[in-house]
Amino acid sequence: MKLKDLAARLDCRLDGDGDLDISRVSGIEQAGAGDLTFVANTRYLGVLRTTKATAVILGHDAPAPPCAALRTDQPYLAFARAVALFADSSRPSPGVDPHASIAADVVLGDAVSIAPFVSIGAGARIGARTILASHVSIGPGASIGEDCVLHAHASIRERCVLGRRVIVQNGAVVGSDGFGFVPLTDGTYEKIPQPAIVVIEDDVEIGANTTIDRPAVGETRIGAGTKIDNLVQIAHGVSVGRNVMLAAQVGIAGSSTVEDRVILAGQVGVAGHLTIGQGTRATAQTGIPNSLDPGSFVSGYPAVDNREWLKSSAVVRKLPELKKRIAELEERVASLEAHLASVASPDERRGSRE
Amino acid sequence: MKLKDLAARLDCRLDGDGDLDISRVSGIEQAGAGDLTFVANTRYLGVLRTTKATAVILGHDAPAPPCAALRTDQPYLAFARAVALFADSSRPSPGVDPHASIAADVVLGDAVSIAPFVSIGAGARIGARTILASHVSIGPGASIGEDCVLHAHASIRERCVLGRRVIVQNGAVVGSDGFGFVPLTDGTYEKIPQPAIVVIEDDVEIGANTTIDRPAVGETRIGAGTKIDNLVQIAHGVSVGRNVMLAAQVGIAGSSTVEDRVILAGQVGVAGHLTIGQGTRATAQTGIPNSLDPGSFVSGYPAVDNREWLKSSAVVRKLPELKKRIAELEERVASLEAHLASVASPDERRGSRE
Amino acid sequence: MKLKDLAARLDCRLDGDGDLDISRVSGIEQAGAGDLTFVANTRYLGVLRTTKATAVILGHDAPAPPCAALRTDQPYLAFARAVALFADSSRPSPGVDPHASIAADVVLGDAVSIAPFVSIGAGARIGARTILASHVSIGPGASIGEDCVLHAHASIRERCVLGRRVIVQNGAVVGSDGFGFVPLTDGTYEKIPQPAIVVIEDDVEIGANTTIDRPAVGETRIGAGTKIDNLVQIAHGVSVGRNVMLAAQVGIAGSSTVEDRVILAGQVGVAGHLTIGQGTRATAQTGIPNSLDPGSFVSGYPAVDNREWLKSSAVVRKLPELKKRIAELEERVASLEAHLASVASPDERRGSRE
Repeated sequence: MKLKDLAARLDCRLDGDGDLDISRVSGIEQAGAGDLTFVANTRYLGVLRTTKATAVILGHDAPAPPCAALRTDQPYLAFARAVALFADSSRPSPGVDPHASIAADVVLGDAVSIAPFVSIGAGARIGARTILASHVSIGPGASIGEDCVLHAHASIRERCVLGRRVIVQNGAVVGSDGFGFVPLTDGTYEKIPQPAIVVIEDDVEIGANTTIDRPAVGETRIGAGTKIDNLVQIAHGVSVGRNVMLAAQVGIAGSSTVEDRVILAGQVGVAGHLTIGQGTRATAQTGIPNSLDPGSFVSGYPAVDNREWLKSSAVVRKLPELKKRIAELEERVASLEAHLASVASPDERRGSRE
Repeated sequence: MKLKDLAARLDCRLDGDGDLDISRVSGIEQAGAGDLTFVANTRYLGVLRTTKATAVILGHDAPAPPCAALRTDQPYLAFARAVALFADSSRPSPGVDPHASIAADVVLGDAVSIAPFVSIGAGARIGARTILASHVSIGPGASIGEDCVLHAHASIRERCVLGRRVIVQNGAVVGSDGFGFVPLTDGTYEKIPQPAIVVIEDDVEIGANTTIDRPAVGETRIGAGTKIDNLVQIAHGVSVGRNVMLAAQVGIAGSSTVEDRVILAGQVGVAGHLTIGQGTRATAQTGIPNSLDPGSFVSGYPAVDNREWLKSSAVVRKLPELKKRIAELEERVASLEAHLASVASPDERRGSRE
Repeated sequence: MKLKDLAARLDCRLDGDGDLDISRVSGIEQAGAGDLTFVANTRYLGVLRTTKATAVILGHDAPAPPCAALRTDQPYLAFARAVALFADSSRPSPGVDPHASIAADVVLGDAVSIAPFVSIGAGARIGARTILASHVSIGPGASIGEDCVLHAHASIRERCVLGRRVIVQNGAVVGSDGFGFVPLTDGTYEKIPQPAIVVIEDDVEIGANTTIDRPAVGETRIGAGTKIDNLVQIAHGVSVGRNVMLAAQVGIAGSSTVEDRVILAGQVGVAGHLTIGQGTRATAQTGIPNSLDPGSFVSGYPAVDNREWLKSSAVVRKLPELKKRIAELEERVASLEAHLASVASPDERRGSRE
């Protein structure tokens, strides 16, 4: 594609020769001749000077590169769209593979694409243009919206509901039984049935091998626009708001509420029955045992304010030194006390013992 | 269902109008007209006063609600049973779907239910009334007991054994190869074959996408009545006792023993070759590097007694302040020392330098 | 098998009766008559004295056991090979099951073994002697090398590449979409397409339900000989070197480089855009926020040098006591200060106020 055409399609200002040919999009460190790359993060500006790319997407303030530039206010977004322009946009043909198993009363929307070994239970509905890859399992009575993509081995259990444009990566499970048991007096546990459902709103993405449990009563809900990475655990009865980001291996225990625009980094854990206020952020591996006010920024285990945690962590490293300084202080104070006792007048010494 | 009939079936004392109609079970905060709800946890007693439920299951000591009550010694258990009464109890019809692949010598018990795309290897046995959902894979020689339920995409590998009434959630794996390798002198690793088996005893539940590895020798065993949540890792040669509870994302390294009635909260890690004594509890994200005596209650990384950890954690937050206080003390002591040196008699000062 | 034959095949020196019959390999604590066991770890030497095994594999320096011995420089390796000798070495017969779905232009190598419900997309290639177990999904254009084993429910997504002798455990996913989104000004996120591929080099093993994401540009790569345990997350654009060991539930964030021979224990997290130098080791649950020099040995959160962490952790447990000692010091110093002020001459006291 000519660089001038790319500039037009990405709504960027072109600095350089518009007739250059671009054949793919690459990372800044790997880019070579014919490649378009980008710098959205100032940390990579240093690499920019030596890039071998043919063109680079840049913010308006970034320094001039040694190649052509596409300038924009939002270089990361322009990069995303450039990737889309060069990606193979082929999608599977509409149609139902003869190796699929679809119950008689299933309602299939127009132009659905159903791969081999897909199983769809009685009473389920599949929205128009939705793609079900191989080995997808749709339980009885489940409802999948329009324009969804479910990758191989995704499971949507009975009666669960997915909105429109939901993407489910491989092996993810929606609607497995919540972990609910009543301890009996003999030390065994009785299972609490988990018949209620999971609702996934529009534009959600669910990562590979992530699990989202159904509850006994009420519902488990993932709000519109929320993105969930791989191997995340969402327990029964959890309510996740809109435009939330949950990184890989996060775990959220039962009945907690995660409000809109929360961002949890990798391996964060949230205890049960909490409310994590709007816009809260937690750094990786944070353990959250209590509810958090909107706008919190937390770290550590148990979670505390991030700045406080940074300060405490710095001191933790110095603890052996601090312990030594305390012991030294004790010696010096004891020495001072002994000295004062020895120089005190007999009257004082007698007095100090009364 | 009439409330008086519910009271009889749940073995509760009825306070209120027995002719009220109940149509579903709900959580205390969502309950409305026609709903039965419950309060088993004193933290929700405050919400009780304003509930819009038609009836509530309560302990004998709980205050009177603004609606009918079903009183019992075990409100949580009565709730579980109420959920079961209202849940759709339909189970798949017995029979083998024509899209299943079952080796010629497989032994199928009475009234098994086998869904599309189930694969059962040579020599396997499936107990009576067991349900295998779509895409379940049963390896050659595996044995599944009676009355089990294996949800979609569960894998039971070759020769592994499941007892009776075992429930396996979607995508769980029983019998994957343990992570065993011998480091060679050239820096590469040689795989140790892992031919031994996993044994799952009666009444175990295994969560979605949980993995339980087979060992090279001996066995991996999960004791009767144990409940395992989603995304849990049980390494090769681990022995888990009876009535153990493992919450989501727990990991147990190779050859460790987890004794009866242990409860590990979410994301806890247990190192290899340890014994975690009976009834031990660990709070979320605890890292356990050493064996623990029966009845331990631990937290933190590395794990220490929970009360000790609570105290230490409280002080960690104050470390920047403590560090400042130590520096101040050092100044004050230095000042005292200087003062004493200045007021000391010439003789004393000379003496102190010898 | 006769013990003398075993000694020859395992290249060990025989101490004892070579005509003894060995029927299986067992762990040291479970071994009985007819069993071969081993001690490679000095911690188990105590158990050696009371073993009921018929023979034991030992280092040359180990004390004499109460049974026959097979002596070698590398007892762990000899054990691994003994397990292989006794393991059922049967492999599935070559051939394609009629219940598999294979696109017309797929290239199958000689003697491949393809189980029921395997799906292979258009343009894919499967190397000679490779085994695809039930429900394996191979995306369009993917390339699987020779002598690989993919267990049930493994997913290899479109165009990804596996080398030779790669083992993929059940439910593992290679090539799911990386977690890449651009935040828009209205608070929503736009998905960045992830069309680039994952490359798995020769002799890699990937654990059950592990997920390895594909990136937008460049590639995700796992180097030759690397072994990855269960439930591990490898994000998009990560580069893992050769002969790396990643234990269960490890997570590596996007674009990080993990160099050769790194060993990460269970539940370790590595942040994005880092370089973890060659041969680095991290103990369980370590959280790594910064790049590490080759040969590092780290622990804790945030990760510090292991010895430093051991010392700090020991002091953390004593923090409540240290806090008390600081408070006591403050009292004693205040008392000294008051005392000195009271004994100071009027002149001194006046002076101290100026």
